[in-house]
Amino acid sequence: MMEMKDFITTQDWQKSKLDKLLEIAEDMKKNPLKYKNSLDGKSICMFFYNPSTRTRNSTQVAAYQLGMHPTFNSIKDSWIGYQSESIKDTSVVLARYYDAIGIRIFPNAVNYIYKEGNRILREFARWSDVPIVNFEDDQYHPLQALTDIFTIKEKKHQVEGKKIVISWAYHPKPLPYSVPNSILLMSTRYGMDVTLAHPEHYDLDDDIINVAKKNTKDSGGSFQISNNIKDAYSDADVVYIKSWGAKKHYGDAKKEKKLRLPYRDNWRIKAEYLDYTRPDSLFMHCLPIRRNVVADDDAIDGSHSVVYDQAENRLYTVKALLYELLKE
Amino acid sequence: MMEMKDFITTQDWQKSKLDKLLEIAEDMKKNPLKYKNSLDGKSICMFFYNPSTRTRNSTQVAAYQLGMHPTFNSIKDSWIGYQSESIKDTSVVLARYYDAIGIRIFPNAVNYIYKEGNRILREFARWSDVPIVNFEDDQYHPLQALTDIFTIKEKKHQVEGKKIVISWAYHPKPLPYSVPNSILLMSTRYGMDVTLAHPEHYDLDDDIINVAKKNTKDSGGSFQISNNIKDAYSDADVVYIKSWGAKKHYGDAKKEKKLRLPYRDNWRIKAEYLDYTRPDSLFMHCLPIRRNVVADDDAIDGSHSVVYDQAENRLYTVKALLYELLKE
Amino acid sequence: MMEMKDFITTQDWQKSKLDKLLEIAEDMKKNPLKYKNSLDGKSICMFFYNPSTRTRNSTQVAAYQLGMHPTFNSIKDSWIGYQSESIKDTSVVLARYYDAIGIRIFPNAVNYIYKEGNRILREFARWSDVPIVNFEDDQYHPLQALTDIFTIKEKKHQVEGKKIVISWAYHPKPLPYSVPNSILLMSTRYGMDVTLAHPEHYDLDDDIINVAKKNTKDSGGSFQISNNIKDAYSDADVVYIKSWGAKKHYGDAKKEKKLRLPYRDNWRIKAEYLDYTRPDSLFMHCLPIRRNVVADDDAIDGSHSVVYDQAENRLYTVKALLYELLKE
Repeated sequence: MMEMKDFITTQDWQKSKLDKLLEIAEDMKKNPLKYKNSLDGKSICMFFYNPSTRTRNSTQVAAYQLGMHPTFNSIKDSWIGYQSESIKDTSVVLARYYDAIGIRIFPNAVNYIYKEGNRILREFARWSDVPIVNFEDDQYHPLQALTDIFTIKEKKHQVEGKKIVISWAYHPKPLPYSVPNSILLMSTRYGMDVTLAHPEHYDLDDDIINVAKKNTKDSGGSFQISNNIKDAYSDADVVYIKSWGAKKHYGDAKKEKKLRLPYRDNWRIKAEYLDYTRPDSLFMHCLPIRRNVVADDDAIDGSHSVVYDQAENRLYTVKALLYELLKE
Repeated sequence: MMEMKDFITTQDWQKSKLDKLLEIAEDMKKNPLKYKNSLDGKSICMFFYNPSTRTRNSTQVAAYQLGMHPTFNSIKDSWIGYQSESIKDTSVVLARYYDAIGIRIFPNAVNYIYKEGNRILREFARWSDVPIVNFEDDQYHPLQALTDIFTIKEKKHQVEGKKIVISWAYHPKPLPYSVPNSILLMSTRYGMDVTLAHPEHYDLDDDIINVAKKNTKDSGGSFQISNNIKDAYSDADVVYIKSWGAKKHYGDAKKEKKLRLPYRDNWRIKAEYLDYTRPDSLFMHCLPIRRNVVADDDAIDGSHSVVYDQAENRLYTVKALLYELLKE
Repeated sequence: MMEMKDFITTQDWQKSKLDKLLEIAEDMKKNPLKYKNSLDGKSICMFFYNPSTRTRNSTQVAAYQLGMHPTFNSIKDSWIGYQSESIKDTSVVLARYYDAIGIRIFPNAVNYIYKEGNRILREFARWSDVPIVNFEDDQYHPLQALTDIFTIKEKKHQVEGKKIVISWAYHPKPLPYSVPNSILLMSTRYGMDVTLAHPEHYDLDDDIINVAKKNTKDSGGSFQISNNIKDAYSDADVVYIKSWGAKKHYGDAKKEKKLRLPYRDNWRIKAEYLDYTRPDSLFMHCLPIRRNVVADDDAIDGSHSVVYDQAENRLYTVKALLYELLKE
C-alpha cells in the first residue's frame, strides 16, 4: 500500500499510519497547547453538500487551534454541482488556493445513485494536488470511525480482543451506510471480536463484508453476523448502535418503510439490552440521535453511555489528521 | 442573585456586573488595541435560526479582535432543530468544542409558541458547560439593550434621571417583543424616567411590566404608560422607537393587521414629534428600520438621530461581554 | 481622475494605480511570506447576493494570509435587501465594523433591471467610509479583468501590442456582461490589439464600446468588432472566450433562446479554432465553464489553455488589492 495523499476511507491507509493518528490525537488531548499554531499560514476548504454539526464545528475549531484558516462553503452558496462546473475544474482550482479540501456528500446529494458520492470524492482526489478529506460520503465516514477506535482505546486502554457489537437500530427513515461501514472496517482492522447485529433485509454491502472478513483474518480478530439481539449483545465490551437503510429499496424511502416498520419496537435500543453486555461495557453512537425512537433516554443517558466523550473526541482526531497531512 | 454563567437577559445579571460591562466597553472603544488577542485560542459558536446583520457582524469582528475564532452556523446548514437532535445533545457537544455559544432564535423559528425561543435558550444553558449568549430570542435582546444604555451614557454622560420614551411605531407586520422588553428592563434598571408609549392593544407582557415596576422602585426612577404621543414625548431626553405586535393575535399576522392599520399614519414617527422633546434629545432605533414606514427620513437622518453610533456601539458591548465571560 | 476609495470598475482607476496592483500581485506570487500578516487586525465584510467559488475562496485565503478576518455573509442569512433595510443604513453600519466591504450582485438579484446591480454597489460606496470592492456586479468584474491582464503579462511578458480576441461562445442561457465588459475595458486600456468577436445580436452595450474606443486611442492599441470566427481568431496571441446574453431580450431567457440557438454548434469553441491563432497563443476563460457546451474539452485541456493558472492568479490580485486599499 502506497502512502496516501487523501483520507477517503481508513481502509486506504496503512495501519501504522492510523496508529500514528491515534497517538497524536491522544497527545493533543493531553497537551492542548503543544501543537498551537503549528500549521500557521495554511488553509482548509470545507465543502458541504449536506448539513453538519459535529464534523463542521470540530474541524473549524481544530483548524483554528492549529493556526489554520477554515473556509466553510455550503453547496447553497457555490457553483459546484453537476452542471455548472466539472469536479475537475473545481478541484484543480480550490487546490491552488488551499492546503487541504474537506468534503461532505450524502446519498440525497447524488440522487441516490449508489456509491456516487464516494466516486465524486475520488474524482476530487484525482485532480487535487492537496489532500482530500472525507467529511462523510455515501460509503464512508472515516473521521468518525477513527474517533470511535480512539474512544474505545481511551476507555478500555486496549482495543484488540474486545468484543464490539455493531447493532442496527430503528429509525423512521432509511439512513446512509457510511457510519456502520466505517466502524465495521476499523473494528475488524483493530483485531476486535466483531458482531454485526441487524434484522433481516438489513445486511451491509457484500464488498464491505468481504473486506471486513479479510481485515479480521489479518488482525487476528473474529467476525460474525447475528439477527438476534440477545445473542449479539451478550458479553459485549462495546455496543455501537446505528440505523441504516435496506439495500433492496435504496433511495425509495416509501417502499423501504414496510421493511423496517416491524422492527420499530424490538430494535429501539433499550437500557435493558445493555444488561446482556459486560457490566463495564460502552454504549456508543455517532450522534445526532432521535431520542426514544432510535434508543431510549435511559440508554443514551445511562452509565454505559460515552456518546458525549465520543463526540468530543472528534476534535482531537481531526486535529491529528490535519497535522499529519499538512505538517512540514 | 448568584453570578451568571450565561447572558440571556440583563435582568439575570447584577447591576454591578452590567456596570462593569459598560465600563470595559467604554475602555475598548477608547483603546482599540488594548485588549487585542486577549482571548487568543478561544472559540465561539454562533448559531442563527434567523437572519442577522449587526449582531452577527459585530460579534465576528469583536471576536477576531480579541484573538478568538468565531464559527457562524446557520440553521440551514446544521442538524439542530426539533426532531433531528435534542437541544441537550447539541448543547453538550458544542460546549465540548467551544468556549461560548451564541444563539439567535425568533418567534417564527418556534412556530409562534409564546416564549418558546427563550425556553430553548435556557435549555441550551442548562446543558452547556460554557456561557450561552442571547443573540436575540423571542423575549429578549440583551446585547441591544446593553448597547442602548451605553449609547445614552456616551451621549448624555449620565443615564439616571433622564427621561426616555419607549415609543411604539407602525410597521406593516407584527414584530417581536425582544427589543422593547429589553430596553424597558434596562432603562428602569438604570433609574431613568421611563414612559412607555403605544396605542391601544399594544401593551407589553404583564410579567415584563411588573419587573419594570420593581426595577423602577429599586433604582429610584419612574415609570408610566401613555397612549398619547405628545404627552409621552414631551421633554424627553431620549426617544427610543420600535414597532411590535399585539399580544391578542400573536402569530396571526392577518388578524393582527386590522388592529394596527388605524395607527399607520399617526404612529409613523415624524421629525416634528421630536419638537415635543428636549432640544438635545436623542432619537434611537436598533435597526433595521423601514424608512418612511416606521419613521420618516428626516427623523432617522435628523440632528437628534444617533442610530448609526448606536449600531456601531454593538461592537464594543459584545466585545466587553466576551471579555468578561471568557477572560482568565 | 481623483484617487479612488473603491474598486468598482478598473475604469475608475488611474492606469498607474492598476500597474501598481499588478506589480504587487507579482511580488506576492513570488514571495508568499513577504506580506504575511501585514494587515493584521483588519476585517473585510464579504457580502454575496449570489453564489461564488473563486471570488469567495481566493478572497478568504488572501485576507487570512494578510492577517485579516474575512466574514462571509450570504444574502440568505442577512436582512439586506430592498425592503428590510436601506442600502444606506447597511453600508454606514458595516463600515463602522469593517475596514473594507466586498459585494457580489448579479442581474437576477435585481430582477434584471439593467445596471441596477452596479447602481446598488455605487450606493454602498456613497455611504460607506471604507472601500467597497466589486466582487462582480451586473456590469463589471474588475478583479477578474485585473487577473486576466496579470495572467497575460505573466505568460507573454508584455501586454501592449498583443492581439486578444474576446470571443462570444454559446451557452444554453443568457449570461451577464460583467466579464466581457471588464476584459474589453482592460485590454483596450493596456494597448492591446483587441478584436471583439460575436454573432449578430450579441453586441455589447454602446457605452462600454465607446469607452473601449477611447481607451484604445489613449493607449495606442487597436479595436475592431467581427462576426467571423476565423477572421477574428487569426494570429491572436490571446483567445478569451465568454458567453453573454443578447441585450434585446435582457431578462427574458425564453425569448432570448431563439436568438442564440442558431449559434449552438458554430460558436461552441473547438480546439481547431485555435489553429487560426499564433502557435503560442493563450486560451482563457474565467470559469466556471460548461464543458463541451461552451467549449470542447480539448480546447479547455489543450496546450493553449491557461484557465487554471488564470484562476489561481485571482488569489494574488485580490491580495494585492486589499493590501493597496488598506495598508497604512
